[in-house]
Amino acid sequence: MVNNVCVLGATGMVGQRFIQLLSQIPDFNIVNIAASERSAGKRYEDAVNWHQTTPIPEEVRDMKIVNTDPNEVADDVDFVFASLPAGLAEPVEAAFAEKFIVASNASVNRMKENIPLVIPEVNPEHLEMMELQKDINGWDGCIVTNPNCSTIALTLTLKPLFDKYNFKRVGVTTMQAVSGAGYNGVPSMGILDNVIPYIGSEEEKMQSETLHLLGERDGGVVQKANFPLSASCNRVGVIDGHTESVSIEFEDDDVTVEDIQETLSEFRGLPQEENLSFAPEQPVIVRKEEDRPQPRMDRDAGHGMSVSVGRIRPDVFDNSFKYTLVGHNTIRGAAGASILNAQLISKLYL
Amino acid sequence: MVNNVCVLGATGMVGQRFIQLLSQIPDFNIVNIAASERSAGKRYEDAVNWHQTTPIPEEVRDMKIVNTDPNEVADDVDFVFASLPAGLAEPVEAAFAEKFIVASNASVNRMKENIPLVIPEVNPEHLEMMELQKDINGWDGCIVTNPNCSTIALTLTLKPLFDKYNFKRVGVTTMQAVSGAGYNGVPSMGILDNVIPYIGSEEEKMQSETLHLLGERDGGVVQKANFPLSASCNRVGVIDGHTESVSIEFEDDDVTVEDIQETLSEFRGLPQEENLSFAPEQPVIVRKEEDRPQPRMDRDAGHGMSVSVGRIRPDVFDNSFKYTLVGHNTIRGAAGASILNAQLISKLYL
Amino acid sequence: MVNNVCVLGATGMVGQRFIQLLSQIPDFNIVNIAASERSAGKRYEDAVNWHQTTPIPEEVRDMKIVNTDPNEVADDVDFVFASLPAGLAEPVEAAFAEKFIVASNASVNRMKENIPLVIPEVNPEHLEMMELQKDINGWDGCIVTNPNCSTIALTLTLKPLFDKYNFKRVGVTTMQAVSGAGYNGVPSMGILDNVIPYIGSEEEKMQSETLHLLGERDGGVVQKANFPLSASCNRVGVIDGHTESVSIEFEDDDVTVEDIQETLSEFRGLPQEENLSFAPEQPVIVRKEEDRPQPRMDRDAGHGMSVSVGRIRPDVFDNSFKYTLVGHNTIRGAAGASILNAQLISKLYL
Amino acid sequence: MVNNVCVLGATGMVGQRFIQLLSQIPDFNIVNIAASERSAGKRYEDAVNWHQTTPIPEEVRDMKIVNTDPNEVADDVDFVFASLPAGLAEPVEAAFAEKFIVASNASVNRMKENIPLVIPEVNPEHLEMMELQKDINGWDGCIVTNPNCSTIALTLTLKPLFDKYNFKRVGVTTMQAVSGAGYNGVPSMGILDNVIPYIGSEEEKMQSETLHLLGERDGGVVQKANFPLSASCNRVGVIDGHTESVSIEFEDDDVTVEDIQETLSEFRGLPQEENLSFAPEQPVIVRKEEDRPQPRMDRDAGHGMSVSVGRIRPDVFDNSFKYTLVGHNTIRGAAGASILNAQLISKLYL
Repeated sequence: MVNNVCVLGATGMVGQRFIQLLSQIPDFNIVNIAASERSAGKRYEDAVNWHQTTPIPEEVRDMKIVNTDPNEVADDVDFVFASLPAGLAEPVEAAFAEKFIVASNASVNRMKENIPLVIPEVNPEHLEMMELQKDINGWDGCIVTNPNCSTIALTLTLKPLFDKYNFKRVGVTTMQAVSGAGYNGVPSMGILDNVIPYIGSEEEKMQSETLHLLGERDGGVVQKANFPLSASCNRVGVIDGHTESVSIEFEDDDVTVEDIQETLSEFRGLPQEENLSFAPEQPVIVRKEEDRPQPRMDRDAGHGMSVSVGRIRPDVFDNSFKYTLVGHNTIRGAAGASILNAQLISKLYL
Repeated sequence: MVNNVCVLGATGMVGQRFIQLLSQIPDFNIVNIAASERSAGKRYEDAVNWHQTTPIPEEVRDMKIVNTDPNEVADDVDFVFASLPAGLAEPVEAAFAEKFIVASNASVNRMKENIPLVIPEVNPEHLEMMELQKDINGWDGCIVTNPNCSTIALTLTLKPLFDKYNFKRVGVTTMQAVSGAGYNGVPSMGILDNVIPYIGSEEEKMQSETLHLLGERDGGVVQKANFPLSASCNRVGVIDGHTESVSIEFEDDDVTVEDIQETLSEFRGLPQEENLSFAPEQPVIVRKEEDRPQPRMDRDAGHGMSVSVGRIRPDVFDNSFKYTLVGHNTIRGAAGASILNAQLISKLYL
Repeated sequence: MVNNVCVLGATGMVGQRFIQLLSQIPDFNIVNIAASERSAGKRYEDAVNWHQTTPIPEEVRDMKIVNTDPNEVADDVDFVFASLPAGLAEPVEAAFAEKFIVASNASVNRMKENIPLVIPEVNPEHLEMMELQKDINGWDGCIVTNPNCSTIALTLTLKPLFDKYNFKRVGVTTMQAVSGAGYNGVPSMGILDNVIPYIGSEEEKMQSETLHLLGERDGGVVQKANFPLSASCNRVGVIDGHTESVSIEFEDDDVTVEDIQETLSEFRGLPQEENLSFAPEQPVIVRKEEDRPQPRMDRDAGHGMSVSVGRIRPDVFDNSFKYTLVGHNTIRGAAGASILNAQLISKLYL
Repeated sequence: MVNNVCVLGATGMVGQRFIQLLSQIPDFNIVNIAASERSAGKRYEDAVNWHQTTPIPEEVRDMKIVNTDPNEVADDVDFVFASLPAGLAEPVEAAFAEKFIVASNASVNRMKENIPLVIPEVNPEHLEMMELQKDINGWDGCIVTNPNCSTIALTLTLKPLFDKYNFKRVGVTTMQAVSGAGYNGVPSMGILDNVIPYIGSEEEKMQSETLHLLGERDGGVVQKANFPLSASCNRVGVIDGHTESVSIEFEDDDVTVEDIQETLSEFRGLPQEENLSFAPEQPVIVRKEEDRPQPRMDRDAGHGMSVSVGRIRPDVFDNSFKYTLVGHNTIRGAAGASILNAQLISKLYL
């Protein structure tokens, strides 16, 4: 089945990633691209300041950008991929959801009742909320969101452990790539020979979204998972790929390093079972070298859709273990997350 | 009082820092510099591959390098500053300790009975072990060690809190500068656009040295402080200045952010009381901006001898708080640490 | 003699450098600081996003920012240091020049008749235009400009050679630091693991300003030096310090490497003769190591006011030589350039 | 036709690139890998410190490393790809050339009589020397070399212009990636926040190899092209991709920017005519943006085998033009160069 799709915010960093990735997937057909008034009416190539390392896909190069208006988008579009500025996301996504399924990267709708916040390997059953959302709003479409980039990588590694063991507490310290902030987000004077120990709202997002993703759905409401999670977020001079140093204290007293390695390595989710083309073979790859994963080396694992985990070792606290993970923040952590959501919805609900 | 001093390992990275810093302090007079056989007999300028951003000090430029042999060092030397390769440190420092006070950066002797491991603001009373050491070995001199770079910065911030409150547990994740590994330690291909989540033995050193520094001395033996401490160590693309993300859980239930800010800000130690010239006015500087400290901006605070702390905030766990610190790893964390030890010894014991 | 001074654009990158440097020079007394309407009325500390690695100078921290209006500046101000956005510089500098001597970093006035474009060691006699400028405009003050950052470093090395030999042609390829573009000028995504082979208008500025500086003044008009100069400008991932690869073809057939080394090393200008406190002992420092100068190692030479030159060697073309230079772009290349101009004017004309 | 191949120096940086690239090309079949005694006898995965961002190819992972000895290599090997340390290359390549065609990256044999130094698009007819070499030495095989990385990128852009116009002189200033120096070649302390204006022997190699490649073969001897070429070489903090700033002065007075753009864009060589699978569609890609090419963005053009050229513009000298180029130094500039040489030899001579 081929789905017609539209990309909102098509000239931005995540918008460009959407276009780059969608053009490589045969089951998606880009029929409309929308951007701000400043760009509307122009050819894509003329409007965009293209920052990807592969060229603008042929089929989009000459496409005319439309206004960010549902009426300018073809009626037979199945998915609208949205990466909009914080201020615009709420009203614009609602307007598009009247007609279309909106796969959104914005944070504003993530924690709302009836709106699924989904990682396909983690909580696909939250997609059931889509129908509730349509009914309650009287919409033909709906909004489906994916989490923050640093949350996605972390939660993919927590999920299989959370299903098997009981967590007492989790701590994570991140070293995040600059691309997460958008092209102009981090000035070079801020990050060359430096670390910035602060990313606005990031710690709060990680702390709440992770527990929401691991929580239980009751209709349109999610009961958050019941363990404390602490996040400390830092920016480092890396282009792509978030590195996270994780510590888990279990209630269980019989967990071993080998258990964790095996559990993470064998983890598969619905996208793997359904053979979705954009799903990585392994959501989590376990590395055993003493100095991996590293963002430059491992961010592209599974075409940027796998999270790499290494240095799994006992922590000094009781029943505690530490590990390091690396995930690609603009593929698995943003555009690729929405695309995998859409593939799963297409397979199961369309 | 002016002390005559000798620098061992004078051509290495820390050796160069010793020479750079000592030449700026009127109460130290460099009378000998020693290095490996390859360099011995040469003028310092001819032997060294100088990597500091200030020129080689005039008084050392033409000095002839001697062999790493106590008999080649002037008898009236008071302190021998040692920064030797791991394999050499143990026998060489012992040989020099027969005649001189050796201020050592090597890790091999740090945890040994009768050998003080000291940060002057933290545990100056451990220096009492010097006499024991002389007596037991029948030496005229002794060995005094300073901790690992990442440990020093952490412990300076823990000490005033540890004196006032009871710790339940402490976790720290570091983002360390490349200079800590020596000039050739980290290849550029390893760190450009990358993070290396592993530094050999660093986590073990931080975990044991910190508790030793906060422990109680009983003769020549130290009873380690009694709380679990977990360290996760990473290398990032920063020249100088280690950044550490710290979380402390207290036994006390009445600690506040303001308490911590005030306690750290007001912390003074013996070097400050004794007005040592190389002691920073404030061992710990508290910053209140949301995005500080940062290594490029704050490593030189207090001429590289102050640790900067910021983002002091409650953690999600009970009675827990988080903060970020930055300390200069080759000044406060290495050469400057030994020098401050020597200044204190000179003032109190010579 | 102590001069009262005012800084325009005091919250910007170069404005911050002005304040940092001026506060260290006893013969300048900052009495007013001006910035945009958004900042006017605020304490400096509250208005500025301070990006220097030393703290805000005490005497400026609490100073109230005034509007960029000559009437808000004290009458007894001698110099107004201006670092204004391109669009504002022309009218604002003219307004201030009615009352004050404006030492300007902006490019807009550099090539105008009667306005001196000066490097004190290179063409101090162009300052004679100040009187002409006052007379013609009926002003009490005047505008004095300094060149572009990359031009200053280059011209300081060309001047002593140009005085001694005849140039047939000069080529320069620059590798420029990001600080030259202002704090937000170069996004980290543009420069990490990258080179940007383009800096808007930079090549044109270098080509015209250098020949103007080496040219002869005839009243208020400058006859440019008569040799072709080609500049190719690149941005690299360096915080401070421009590196330039230079090739000179001489008309003379008897130039040697030793001549060039000696000529550059012995070069002194009027600031050195007049013992100006901000003048470096040597405007040009010659290095003989095979791999120097380097920006991280040499940018701070002469407190950032000396240009370091190395790798002086014959080129393959007839009577041609190549060398590499490094100069600090925001000290000697911007704020420090204006300050040295002001010191010279103060000494000779006030 | 499928060729059996062997890789010498298989654990080094270029050796790894050989293995990575060869495993993707169906017409090459890796049958032996050789390395130093330290590695011989081990499985490849156990011996190598793999630094590529794609995993070790399956077919090589378990392969046993043999000694660097022609007798340990299968007799039916067609090509031996060699990337050996400078000291070893000369005797080892000669020993292998007795039986095999050695495609070499080492510099030691490049300028020797009867040994072709070849870029397939530039001077494929120099391969005719292979027969002479076999005859003279009485070998069954021979040595074929490819130039230095920075030379290859430059010469690919000079060749089509050199064929059409007459050069008066050429100047080039390089900004080279750290990977060219091998994994441990450039310490991070040397290149973070820095530029190193020196690469040992690089300027000499560029100056002599380029003229050799553009020269005319007379039997086993090459008459170098007859114009002066000056190279200035710098190292910058870039992982892969050399950037070069080029200036050409023509004898002709009618060259235009459009001529150059068209000539470079339309350039095709024998590898393109022969449809070699590893040949890029376009050896030189012309970009018209004002700020391209850039190494991070353009190094992978043509799978790392195309050189990107931009900023083609008139220079200030008579009949002179400038441009910037980017080429991938470890693909087109090293391993890929040898592979393309082998593909051409296989097609034309085997």
